[in-house]
Amino acid sequence: MSVGGYPEDVVQLLRSAGVSVWDRVRIRKDGQIIEGILMPRPALLGGRALVVKLDNGYNVGVLPDGAQIDLISKGAEPKISSGEESREAPKKGLRNVTIVSAGGTISSRIDYNTGAVFPALTAKELSAIFPGIMQLANVRSVPLLNILSEDMSPSHWKLLAQTVYNEITDGADGVVITHGTDTLHYTASALSFMLQGLGVPVALVGAQRSSDRGSSDNVMNLECSVAVAASDMAGVVVVMHGSMSDDYCLVHQGVKVRKMHTSRRDAFRSINVLPYARVRWKGDASAPIIERIRDYPKRSGGKPKLDLRLDDKVALIYVHPGINPEFIDSLSKYYDGVVLAGTGLGHAPTNPGNDPLARSVLPSIRSLISSGIPVVMAPQTIYGRVNMNVYAAGRLLKEAGVIGDQCDWTPEAALVKLMFVLGHTKDMKEVKRMMETDMVGEISSTSDPRAFLYRST
Amino acid sequence: MSVGGYPEDVVQLLRSAGVSVWDRVRIRKDGQIIEGILMPRPALLGGRALVVKLDNGYNVGVLPDGAQIDLISKGAEPKISSGEESREAPKKGLRNVTIVSAGGTISSRIDYNTGAVFPALTAKELSAIFPGIMQLANVRSVPLLNILSEDMSPSHWKLLAQTVYNEITDGADGVVITHGTDTLHYTASALSFMLQGLGVPVALVGAQRSSDRGSSDNVMNLECSVAVAASDMAGVVVVMHGSMSDDYCLVHQGVKVRKMHTSRRDAFRSINVLPYARVRWKGDASAPIIERIRDYPKRSGGKPKLDLRLDDKVALIYVHPGINPEFIDSLSKYYDGVVLAGTGLGHAPTNPGNDPLARSVLPSIRSLISSGIPVVMAPQTIYGRVNMNVYAAGRLLKEAGVIGDQCDWTPEAALVKLMFVLGHTKDMKEVKRMMETDMVGEISSTSDPRAFLYRST
Repeated sequence: MSVGGYPEDVVQLLRSAGVSVWDRVRIRKDGQIIEGILMPRPALLGGRALVVKLDNGYNVGVLPDGAQIDLISKGAEPKISSGEESREAPKKGLRNVTIVSAGGTISSRIDYNTGAVFPALTAKELSAIFPGIMQLANVRSVPLLNILSEDMSPSHWKLLAQTVYNEITDGADGVVITHGTDTLHYTASALSFMLQGLGVPVALVGAQRSSDRGSSDNVMNLECSVAVAASDMAGVVVVMHGSMSDDYCLVHQGVKVRKMHTSRRDAFRSINVLPYARVRWKGDASAPIIERIRDYPKRSGGKPKLDLRLDDKVALIYVHPGINPEFIDSLSKYYDGVVLAGTGLGHAPTNPGNDPLARSVLPSIRSLISSGIPVVMAPQTIYGRVNMNVYAAGRLLKEAGVIGDQCDWTPEAALVKLMFVLGHTKDMKEVKRMMETDMVGEISSTSDPRAFLYRST
Repeated sequence: MSVGGYPEDVVQLLRSAGVSVWDRVRIRKDGQIIEGILMPRPALLGGRALVVKLDNGYNVGVLPDGAQIDLISKGAEPKISSGEESREAPKKGLRNVTIVSAGGTISSRIDYNTGAVFPALTAKELSAIFPGIMQLANVRSVPLLNILSEDMSPSHWKLLAQTVYNEITDGADGVVITHGTDTLHYTASALSFMLQGLGVPVALVGAQRSSDRGSSDNVMNLECSVAVAASDMAGVVVVMHGSMSDDYCLVHQGVKVRKMHTSRRDAFRSINVLPYARVRWKGDASAPIIERIRDYPKRSGGKPKLDLRLDDKVALIYVHPGINPEFIDSLSKYYDGVVLAGTGLGHAPTNPGNDPLARSVLPSIRSLISSGIPVVMAPQTIYGRVNMNVYAAGRLLKEAGVIGDQCDWTPEAALVKLMFVLGHTKDMKEVKRMMETDMVGEISSTSDPRAFLYRST
């Protein structure tokens, strides 16, 4: 009898009621009646609450103490269509897509003891919950990380890049990475630099709602991302809701996208460029349809160059009124490089007029640079291009050696790129040259005015 | 003979050519001929370049060395309609508006020696360049600051708040502040907190193009801001281009607005709320028309409460993968308070699963708080509301005492508010209570879905 990860005392209770996980049960407690399928409890969660899937698709948690549990009918574990199965009998004409699970809401469950969401589902479980993806590709599942994306570190990026590289080398025609949304765009940038020359698509996908809620947020996102991974695209992309409705996803260039809202489904937005494509989704058995918005790299089948050299000791610093020059000085103790999210066109207080009430950070920035710590400018406005030639502050910063003039990167892409570049050289001239040369599309040569606050088409 | 701020040797040259500023001149140099009005050279700029206004409205700078200068016709200084004049003969039915000049592009000129823009115009000069504003109000000019807005410090905010307060106490029916755009929204937040209970409008205005270019960017912005300052609104607002065309400005709530693009005219956007109003501008002699978008505070004539207590030792820290916990520890050396621009719903690495590759900043945050340094959460997504109840990281941070759950403030408004609150109390409970209680609209009770990436109507 399966008791699905519950602690010993709860197991006793379930046994005495003749109930196993996947059975349909009725639970009476405090005058209330709950009816549904008893679900396994992920061991990682700990705690004692019974997890019951209601007929409306929502899961609820019920503490067993004082509850009366009755069996309505016996059930069976849903069939898992794992990658191994599909590999044994691949469908003709379908491409091979590996889903690498790196955690996050799209593969998470609510912790019913605390109400908080905790990552728990493996990619294997995902294919059971999302059967639609099996029609789009021969899916193989690789559970890799099970952490909240805010805990993702450059070390995790290396693991992920290595795993993706291995999958492609082993024959995957495309890769989907399920990932928490908090830092999904940082990871997308990191993979863009660490897997250059990708001849197949690597699609990062997340969800703004947890997968055990009734929301089809995650169903659409995952189906669209598998469709993209099996498509004629190439390179690292982010596939997420394009609107508040479940009607289409947008495909964003991995190094030019950013989470722009704390909670909306359509939080991910391309910055300074249009999305690559729209993926129409009907929610029925039909395959999602990919519609081009602008040119994107095409599948070549070429193997990427795996490059894991990364110096993770890089800071991203918000420039603001009241910033303390001594604080800027102190960065040399903790970091090998600094990205400034500067004001306006790429500024920081330089006080060229020697105003007695102003404090300049220019000497501190000069001091960082002369001690071998590169300082890179990115815009805190998020949208737009750094231009350090227009105003006195910009010119002084540029003269001091601040890197990034004419770059329209996001602060996040600039941070990750500086980590990557410092993994290859500490020579200041070479750092500047590499940083200011577009590597994987992080610096656009022209700006598309339609991209500002781009919401839908 | 006026020689308008040029250095002695250039003055000699002009004298020998019989030329004064405001004369129409022809300058031959290196085979090129330039014709236009010789303009005064602002003393602040230094340098020797002759400034000539061409017939197309643009100014150019020419170094006098090797140039042949000929007089075409004598000119005269344009009449300045200063505030003093208009006070002597105020137009009936027009309100009294004070224009306080705090620097920035809207009151700047290009430094023709370096090509960089430098703040130079006084508000008095502004009324000469922008005669349209004299039809909208009895305008008085107060030149206050002449700095780049990235050099604005909390001390400047105090000067500005005091000046605005004095003007209102002295009878101004509204105030316009010309300001650089880099930190205009920080200043708007600061004035919102320091001048509570405003019964008249205080309109901050800037320009994304310098005022000596042909662009009418600044003409529209200034006319619209004077119209707003003379209107039935009250409170601190930002008046800036609403679109890429010169057709309307938007009026933004001062504490809910942010510069969202490095260079576009329509860079300023209301965050999480709709703008208060649109100001239609035709570019002819007709007055701009204010159209309500949502309810805004109405003019009551009440005097504000001036409160200059501000602790400027507050940091705004970007949370990102690779952030060093020791760096967070070190903040206590430089700051009395910390605002975190957290990921997602308001997160930072907490590593609840003890992942060996992850680093948690939770102990560092706990240590800051236990040493009396409040830590406040704001969203790096810019849009949306902090919610520290959904995920384990948020709950851990909230339990540790991080302030700001359910707040939809911008990082900039949270920073300025913490400076203001720490100017009043260091008691952690009181700091938390004041921070999480809406004071001047910085925390919206409900979110308007139309406000996300709001571009135009």
